[in-house]
Amino acid sequence: MAVSMDDDVPLILTLDEGGSSTSAPLDDPDREELPNENGGSYDVINDASSPAAGDCCAQQSSARHNWEMNYQEAAIYLQEGENNDKFFTHPKNAKALAAYLFAHNHLFYLMELSTALLLLLLSLCEAPAVPMLRLGIFVHATLELFALIVVVFELSMKMRWLGFQTFIRHKRTMVKTCVLFVQFIEAIVVLVRQTSHVRITRALRCIFLVDCRYCGAVRRNLRQIFQSLPPFIDILLLLLFFMVIFAILGFYLFSPNHSDPYFNTLENSLVNLFVLLTTSNFPDVMMPSYARNPWSCVFFIVYLSIELYFIMNLLLAVVFDTFNDIEKRKFKSLLLHKRTAIQHAFRLLITKQRPSGISFKHFEGLLRFYKPGMCARERYLTFKALNQSNTPLVSLKEFYNFYEVIGLKWKAKRNREHWFDDLPRTAFLIFKGINILVNSRVFQYTMYTVVAVNGIWILVETFMLQGGNFFSRNVPWSYIVFLTIYGVELLLKTTGLGPVEYLSSGWNLFDFSVTLFAFLGLMALAFNMEPFYFIVVLRPLQLLRLFKLKKRYRNVLDTMFELFPRMASLGLTLLIFYYCFAIVGMEFFAGVVYPNCCNTSTVADSYRWVNHTVGNKTVVEEGYYYLNNFDNILNSFVTLFELTVVNDWYIIMEGVTSQTTHWSRLYFMIFYIVTMVVMTIIVAFILDAFVFRMNYTRKNQDSEEDNGIVLEKEISKEEVVGVIELYKRSSAAAEITQLQKIVLQMDKYG
Amino acid sequence: MAVSMDDDVPLILTLDEGGSSTSAPLDDPDREELPNENGGSYDVINDASSPAAGDCCAQQSSARHNWEMNYQEAAIYLQEGENNDKFFTHPKNAKALAAYLFAHNHLFYLMELSTALLLLLLSLCEAPAVPMLRLGIFVHATLELFALIVVVFELSMKMRWLGFQTFIRHKRTMVKTCVLFVQFIEAIVVLVRQTSHVRITRALRCIFLVDCRYCGAVRRNLRQIFQSLPPFIDILLLLLFFMVIFAILGFYLFSPNHSDPYFNTLENSLVNLFVLLTTSNFPDVMMPSYARNPWSCVFFIVYLSIELYFIMNLLLAVVFDTFNDIEKRKFKSLLLHKRTAIQHAFRLLITKQRPSGISFKHFEGLLRFYKPGMCARERYLTFKALNQSNTPLVSLKEFYNFYEVIGLKWKAKRNREHWFDDLPRTAFLIFKGINILVNSRVFQYTMYTVVAVNGIWILVETFMLQGGNFFSRNVPWSYIVFLTIYGVELLLKTTGLGPVEYLSSGWNLFDFSVTLFAFLGLMALAFNMEPFYFIVVLRPLQLLRLFKLKKRYRNVLDTMFELFPRMASLGLTLLIFYYCFAIVGMEFFAGVVYPNCCNTSTVADSYRWVNHTVGNKTVVEEGYYYLNNFDNILNSFVTLFELTVVNDWYIIMEGVTSQTTHWSRLYFMIFYIVTMVVMTIIVAFILDAFVFRMNYTRKNQDSEEDNGIVLEKEISKEEVVGVIELYKRSSAAAEITQLQKIVLQMDKYG
Repeated sequence: MAVSMDDDVPLILTLDEGGSSTSAPLDDPDREELPNENGGSYDVINDASSPAAGDCCAQQSSARHNWEMNYQEAAIYLQEGENNDKFFTHPKNAKALAAYLFAHNHLFYLMELSTALLLLLLSLCEAPAVPMLRLGIFVHATLELFALIVVVFELSMKMRWLGFQTFIRHKRTMVKTCVLFVQFIEAIVVLVRQTSHVRITRALRCIFLVDCRYCGAVRRNLRQIFQSLPPFIDILLLLLFFMVIFAILGFYLFSPNHSDPYFNTLENSLVNLFVLLTTSNFPDVMMPSYARNPWSCVFFIVYLSIELYFIMNLLLAVVFDTFNDIEKRKFKSLLLHKRTAIQHAFRLLITKQRPSGISFKHFEGLLRFYKPGMCARERYLTFKALNQSNTPLVSLKEFYNFYEVIGLKWKAKRNREHWFDDLPRTAFLIFKGINILVNSRVFQYTMYTVVAVNGIWILVETFMLQGGNFFSRNVPWSYIVFLTIYGVELLLKTTGLGPVEYLSSGWNLFDFSVTLFAFLGLMALAFNMEPFYFIVVLRPLQLLRLFKLKKRYRNVLDTMFELFPRMASLGLTLLIFYYCFAIVGMEFFAGVVYPNCCNTSTVADSYRWVNHTVGNKTVVEEGYYYLNNFDNILNSFVTLFELTVVNDWYIIMEGVTSQTTHWSRLYFMIFYIVTMVVMTIIVAFILDAFVFRMNYTRKNQDSEEDNGIVLEKEISKEEVVGVIELYKRSSAAAEITQLQKIVLQMDKYG
Repeated sequence: MAVSMDDDVPLILTLDEGGSSTSAPLDDPDREELPNENGGSYDVINDASSPAAGDCCAQQSSARHNWEMNYQEAAIYLQEGENNDKFFTHPKNAKALAAYLFAHNHLFYLMELSTALLLLLLSLCEAPAVPMLRLGIFVHATLELFALIVVVFELSMKMRWLGFQTFIRHKRTMVKTCVLFVQFIEAIVVLVRQTSHVRITRALRCIFLVDCRYCGAVRRNLRQIFQSLPPFIDILLLLLFFMVIFAILGFYLFSPNHSDPYFNTLENSLVNLFVLLTTSNFPDVMMPSYARNPWSCVFFIVYLSIELYFIMNLLLAVVFDTFNDIEKRKFKSLLLHKRTAIQHAFRLLITKQRPSGISFKHFEGLLRFYKPGMCARERYLTFKALNQSNTPLVSLKEFYNFYEVIGLKWKAKRNREHWFDDLPRTAFLIFKGINILVNSRVFQYTMYTVVAVNGIWILVETFMLQGGNFFSRNVPWSYIVFLTIYGVELLLKTTGLGPVEYLSSGWNLFDFSVTLFAFLGLMALAFNMEPFYFIVVLRPLQLLRLFKLKKRYRNVLDTMFELFPRMASLGLTLLIFYYCFAIVGMEFFAGVVYPNCCNTSTVADSYRWVNHTVGNKTVVEEGYYYLNNFDNILNSFVTLFELTVVNDWYIIMEGVTSQTTHWSRLYFMIFYIVTMVVMTIIVAFILDAFVFRMNYTRKNQDSEEDNGIVLEKEISKEEVVGVIELYKRSSAAAEITQLQKIVLQMDKYG
């Protein structure tokens, strides 16, 4: 039996900030087995001095409590290491620990998140509201006050845990408190006045979302963006400098031409060169001068070559470089932080008698707090995986691998290969046949061919339809034929591989859902259910399966999936910027553009809406751009996306400017620069991730399949029995029965 | 005296292809000093067998000739190593060597280049010609025939040098020959018919330019582009695939909306999504469906997110990665090639008696052929720099540094610090004072302040002018004041530093030329010379000097200058693609667009030209886009640049398409993809170069100034006298007098 069952006295640590803890060994060896009294231990905590000077009569129980305390504190340290929380926020006393535990569980996190979302979503209902969601001022102001009170409660919990000193020193929390204060006053003002005033501060509501535990990735992104700013701003200044020089040149060169509206004043010249930087008004901005003198194109070609093709790429290079550098430094500091956390936890788990390592008992105690969902078998396997020296204790060096090992998923190595192994002989043979069939290359390539034929079919079919109502007719037979083939394939695969194995592959899951959608579409067609018609058009997605054929595509798509969480967090970061700008936009520009609003401006055509009669037909001439407005938050988001795409953004800018002042341009220009920063960082991130991935695959070209880390650990029956013994002493009934089941299985399969 | 003067017999090598030469030592030790008989040695060449079996009576002269031959051949090897020419093109016999020498000098290269340029420039004069440069068919066809005959002559020289076998095996030369043949026939056909036919093959004329010796960088770029293609095409297919899927989806979703012209057929749907990929028709393409159902924006947002923000960046990542990889491999193979060349040369320069190294005499002989412009002192210094072991011979290991050392520029370490050191005391003190002044920080920052004030002045002044004629007035006094300050600065700097030192700095050169231009502008203003007015507007360029202030800008601008040759070669590569597309465009689309040409198309407004009378004023309504045509090669280049910038390119495409067939779109789409490849590679190159440079500077942060390699070599008087002795024996009068001058100087300054 490999598990050490000795019970020792913990080397209790004084809790201090920097991590330079000095150990204060206790003298009482407590070797008795004690019953496990789970629960209720939260009220006695590891106060820095109490156990060392603990009263003698409660020695036994105190030692046990001390151990529970140590487990918990070690788990907290490890969590802090994982989440990159600084150790100066570590709870310092009983009250703080209670508050810490209260504020660190998914229920609390969810409350945080939902309050933040509620506050953000309020802008859907506040004036200018989305028509369908408009709420009375009283209603939304009350909702806001309620949400703010919840935030106050959250902050007070945080203060209890951090203590006033640390609370004030923690910048993010302080900013949040200030914003909260302002929001509170404003909400009350709104309630009292019963009318909304200009509330640009609503843009600051994002901070509640950013501060959420679940939005750690967004915080990291924001930090990275702010860190990349200094070099970015330097190059931006270079860009703007050249812009000013060219604006002066352009003004001198082209303003004598009275038919050129782009350079008639220095301001126009500057604005148009800024727009030209985004290429949005090219070649129009060149045309009047080009018509007069063909050589004037040189000015624009030189400007674009320098600004767009050189300095903008330089910007990307600088950001890419800074990004890389920050990533490297972040990785190092994160690693160091984790190591420190592990050191803290290690010191809490060793005993005076055996200071060289952690025994399984204490390791198990730690895991009970660190990962409550883990079962006994997995805990033991994790211990064995850490314990590479095969001694009863895990040394500090081995313990450094904690975070890697804890992330591993343990899977029983089955003797049975297929789900149908236990079935009677005939059924087994049939299923075995299906299994061989669906795993064969012939089957796979047949399916690829079918998908390709289907793709061509859809293309030709669609090409034949020249507009009109496609859905009024009957279900086309080709649809039924292909769907049947896919259905049969799905059935064969499910039976041949077993549902669990089938759905464990991402590609199969994709096939499954697309086929399901296609089937739902068929239903919709067959029963004429109008609102679900859109499902029918998802059919071409089947073609995506063809990309399994080539390795590079598999790589790209796999990388896509791997990058997805990070991309999502970057997207969320962008959305947060959008939210701020949307609020500001709504406060200033709500309702300023409408059909035919801008007839005096240069972009009048785009805002035109004329309903005139030609012969006996009514012809509507629409510019449509009045739809790109800031009338509510959803419209604002679409408008901001259009501004992000950059093309023709100056039409939106000029439309709004013509209805307000020319200072409005600042809003649009700042938005452009901000999205440029974020987009450049997204590009730098994609570049970095893919280049890394491609280098990685190039290095591992020999090993075609990359299955991640494979770690095999065998457990003998004796070990399991030993673990059962351990649990019996601590009377954890559920775990014991589970382990006994494993012993039974072991007996059965040998 | 360190120079070894012994004269040995060369270890003559048999010339063979692979470089696995076997040495065939000669037996006759030829230790006599022989007079240098330069010239006329080209006719006797190092035929593989002759010196080994040479006739005895001509022993002496033969050995000398052998040495000359060996020097020349070694020089050729080293040239081949430098130019990355393959060794199988190495000249193999006397005739080949003569042809090689004929074809490898700047005169021949210039002939090559000018013939190629003449052929390319012919397209300015051929129909459709630039109006001012139009030539008769007879004239330009004759010119073309003449140029082609010159190319034939060049090719025949090449064939003589390479031999027929190698000539056929050399791909680029074969392609050139085929193109030449086709061009010849076509030129004759044009001459006979006296009319131009559709000559798309003119696009192939670029190959004559690409094949020029001076365009090696362009060839390398092209190779790199073609090598980056396979991964690029893979991702491009992914891009097009998603485009097709979205086109089908879009067609199904939006074609029921009859007011939506963008998705009414599958072809339109595809074309518009292709254009949307370039963002060129966004948000217009979305507007009709967005007006009908706000949720349809999801389709466009998803499409752009996947295609534009993900796959396009992926494309950049893949190209960047491939680019990096190719650069690394290229660097390695180039290094190996150079090493092989050095080995070949080394074997030709060692003697039978001393096979371990090259003596100065033979090294000097090599340099006479390799770098005829080098003076005796530099040759000796190069030898000393190579010869790190301070033995009389340069070993192979030391010889490996040949290319690095030969690139060094030797500068005498003067005892005199300033140019005015020799002047009388009073003058010296004055100049010394000026020198201290111009080098002082106060002076520099005063000048920066003046430049900044000047910049603000120009800005304010320009802002005050609201359009109109600026040049009719008198010279503004501010202009004179600032120009005087700059003039005084220039004068002080020139006198304080000496003209040579002043102009050796790039920044000073820049200051000088800007001040000169400003002065010329003043002249133009003062004497009312209309055509030179444009110089006046170059004044703001002075502001560029402010960028010396910050280190990052200095770095960026320095890197810009360093990258300039490479950027220029990339630009030239782009121009070559432009040329091909311009020729094709002119052949198919010359004259198809004109004012009001496209009234039936969707882009009619942009091509409109209406001259109507409102009240008593004539108002011209111009769309100007008819100016973006393919009517001659210059117009085509501007149009292609506009297509490269991408914004509103679909207006040009639709205009041309409405006047021709819808297959014309292929031309524009292919052009977009080609420029995308080239542009992506340019971006990848800039990224790579800057990231490298920034990493480099980050590593060398401590050493603020980067002066390149500094290598000090002292020559003693004895050494110079030794070298003079050597030259005396070979009676090179010019070199001896030069060296004697150095000895005199040495005597003077000690």
